[in-house]
Amino acid sequence: MFDLIIIGMGPGGYEAALTALRKKINVAIVEKSKLGGNCLNRACIPTKYLRSGAHSIEKLQKLKAYGIEVKDYSIDYKAAFENKEKSIGFLRKSLEQLLKSKKVPVFKGKGKIIDKNKVEVSYPDGSKEIIEGKNIIIATGSYPASVGKLIPDGNYIITTEDYMEKLDTLPESMLIVGGGVAGCEIGYIAKSYGCQVYITELQDRLLPSDIISPEISKNLLKKLNSVGIKTFFNTTVEDFSIEESKIKVKLSNGEIIVVDKILLTVGRKPNTQDIDTIGIEKDEKGFIKVNSYLQTNFENIYAIGDVVNSPMLAHIASYEAKIVLHNITSQDKKIPDYTLTPWAIFSGYEIGHVGLNEETAKKQGLEVISGYYPFTYNEKAVDELEPEGYVRLYFEKNSKKIIGVDVVGIGASEIIHQIAVFIKEGYTADQVHEFIYFHPSLSEIFAYASYDIAVGKLF
Amino acid sequence: MFDLIIIGMGPGGYEAALTALRKKINVAIVEKSKLGGNCLNRACIPTKYLRSGAHSIEKLQKLKAYGIEVKDYSIDYKAAFENKEKSIGFLRKSLEQLLKSKKVPVFKGKGKIIDKNKVEVSYPDGSKEIIEGKNIIIATGSYPASVGKLIPDGNYIITTEDYMEKLDTLPESMLIVGGGVAGCEIGYIAKSYGCQVYITELQDRLLPSDIISPEISKNLLKKLNSVGIKTFFNTTVEDFSIEESKIKVKLSNGEIIVVDKILLTVGRKPNTQDIDTIGIEKDEKGFIKVNSYLQTNFENIYAIGDVVNSPMLAHIASYEAKIVLHNITSQDKKIPDYTLTPWAIFSGYEIGHVGLNEETAKKQGLEVISGYYPFTYNEKAVDELEPEGYVRLYFEKNSKKIIGVDVVGIGASEIIHQIAVFIKEGYTADQVHEFIYFHPSLSEIFAYASYDIAVGKLF
Repeated sequence: MFDLIIIGMGPGGYEAALTALRKKINVAIVEKSKLGGNCLNRACIPTKYLRSGAHSIEKLQKLKAYGIEVKDYSIDYKAAFENKEKSIGFLRKSLEQLLKSKKVPVFKGKGKIIDKNKVEVSYPDGSKEIIEGKNIIIATGSYPASVGKLIPDGNYIITTEDYMEKLDTLPESMLIVGGGVAGCEIGYIAKSYGCQVYITELQDRLLPSDIISPEISKNLLKKLNSVGIKTFFNTTVEDFSIEESKIKVKLSNGEIIVVDKILLTVGRKPNTQDIDTIGIEKDEKGFIKVNSYLQTNFENIYAIGDVVNSPMLAHIASYEAKIVLHNITSQDKKIPDYTLTPWAIFSGYEIGHVGLNEETAKKQGLEVISGYYPFTYNEKAVDELEPEGYVRLYFEKNSKKIIGVDVVGIGASEIIHQIAVFIKEGYTADQVHEFIYFHPSLSEIFAYASYDIAVGKLF
Repeated sequence: MFDLIIIGMGPGGYEAALTALRKKINVAIVEKSKLGGNCLNRACIPTKYLRSGAHSIEKLQKLKAYGIEVKDYSIDYKAAFENKEKSIGFLRKSLEQLLKSKKVPVFKGKGKIIDKNKVEVSYPDGSKEIIEGKNIIIATGSYPASVGKLIPDGNYIITTEDYMEKLDTLPESMLIVGGGVAGCEIGYIAKSYGCQVYITELQDRLLPSDIISPEISKNLLKKLNSVGIKTFFNTTVEDFSIEESKIKVKLSNGEIIVVDKILLTVGRKPNTQDIDTIGIEKDEKGFIKVNSYLQTNFENIYAIGDVVNSPMLAHIASYEAKIVLHNITSQDKKIPDYTLTPWAIFSGYEIGHVGLNEETAKKQGLEVISGYYPFTYNEKAVDELEPEGYVRLYFEKNSKKIIGVDVVGIGASEIIHQIAVFIKEGYTADQVHEFIYFHPSLSEIFAYASYDIAVGKLF
């Protein structure tokens, strides 16, 4: 009997395995597909690779400012796609080799819990095997949702996973259904590499989510429009038909567009349909119900990542993995705290957020003041030819304690972390302003964004 | 009478002026040269501009990984230099306009304190004017030092300021005397743009300073050598002569090299020779003596930045400006705390450091353990085609509290800031490890660099 069986080797399962090994726990892994899960193979990592390429294309002509004149160049999406596969392959291989060197058994099939201590593994050839474990972690992740008549067929109508893993040739044109994170990320990549991109969004803005300030959506929209992406809001796909290998799409606003592909980016659903036969409790959306220690209704069976109803983010899966490994091995249980979950997106702009914004703070009954500073006057951003974007810091009005930050522009996904620590430690605007930031750095923009509130206004 | 006269409008004076304006203090400025000081016009900002260009050149061929094939391009240093001037000009102009819009009198001459409340301004045309102030801040910065026979002549033997402000054409070859920050930064720039670069260093490594771990020096040396910079350690310039517009240099190791320019980067000296006639106390190196409130021996006269014996860094000057403005306007005085001064350099690698390292910790009697992780396996670094470099975190052995960090590689100058907050707040390895970092980010490398110490070793 293993001490621990982990079903699913994405960012949650991977972290659980690494921690288990370091804690000398006898662990087994069940994974039906590639090690690294969606995040490494079809989502976070490949999108950031291609986005970095897309951004490099955008920047190529700007390099003249550095005296670098690019006179002749070519863009080859297929080469980008293949090199992306190589990079991911390297990372997957090192994970594989690590598990091998630690002699961790990896059962390469589909896992189903058939007893509180038993996992049945079904192999592609139809054979089955049963393994036993004292504890089990369900970390099987999620799959792309579909909407209405738009059923992915892997050819005309594709998912983000099809796009990232299979579509090695860029279509001439593509309609993206859904203006959320995945739609904005892939839209920018596809457009930069030469595809005509349309985005339809059911709601009235890009990134329609409470935690995303309307100001962010507005800025990103302007940017995506400026690179040539056409957007439709409050709009759905009413109908579509395939005509001469093209898709003729009728939108709810009456417009008709003709594209080569429709990319569905309308959210994800937990991979829990066939996870057990023993009555593990799920909610109406299929998320596994867990208590605050991340235990299911079976105390030795835990669930982490996209299968539970916490933020669907890779770093939350790995955070939960750490919590569970602690709870498995320790008497004093830990409870996850999601308040400081950093969030970032890589589209026309890099955008980052942590903590509250005006909308979410108001919902908590807080009075908010905010401080703003554009990258235009940040010397480091100017030096990097990236003067677009801004920072907005949110403070509780009376205490002047920092409660959140939005960053649009260069470095967003990194510099939010120091603000996360400031929030955790209850720093006031004064403390944020007087903190010693390196000069010139992007981070020092926080000293400027807190100036008005800490010291007083200039105008 | 003004409330405050600021002599010198570099990063210290600029911050002092901005803070004074926000505090509604009646301020006057004395500046003999360009607004923004050395930092904006001849040091921090232009070097980071040109370094970003240099790094872009290095990366140009790597873009193939993104399917971007650059087939024909040209490098024009003069264009880079001129565009750098434009960028700086924009930033200087906005500073100028800000002061104008706030109607701040700027006396464009050399200031000398002739009475505890009087500053005599000498103008370039020989005329003089006396202005009066309740308080005075000396923020006149520093100038490049010279060594032995190597006296800057602005032609053959130049300073970093000559290089950044005047040298619009790249020499074919250059000897840099001094392997410190400026030498390593400018050396990388010049080499990338096509100049043959030699560096001589008196000591046995690049960046010879207590706060720089030998491991950092070793990595940077390997990189600079790999791009073709020739380095000589434990070596001085013994003699030189000008022959047919070239400089023939004899090194102390017996080697003879012939170059177009000698660039002196052997440190800086405070600009205090002619600052007063009233007996403001200075130390033997010319630094103005200040008490812990940054007051000179005249209680209404303060000194900040490179003229005092604190770290010669722009962000320390502006930090000290904030402290002084507080102390001028408040009864409860503040004392500057330099323990968390972030430090970064932009050379062949971006390198950052904050807190202690093994050497400096040992000197304080601390036992140290450290955690290491290379960027090779950091997914974001891989996505950005920047897998070189590493992170080393330093912890006090018994408490496992974090006390310092070295970062070599992408994002170094930004991601050190979150570690600065961790150090300030006394975080343990556990807390550093369990902090929620965005995935994929460079910052999450800290979770991996603390893994061994927080959880246990893998091997």
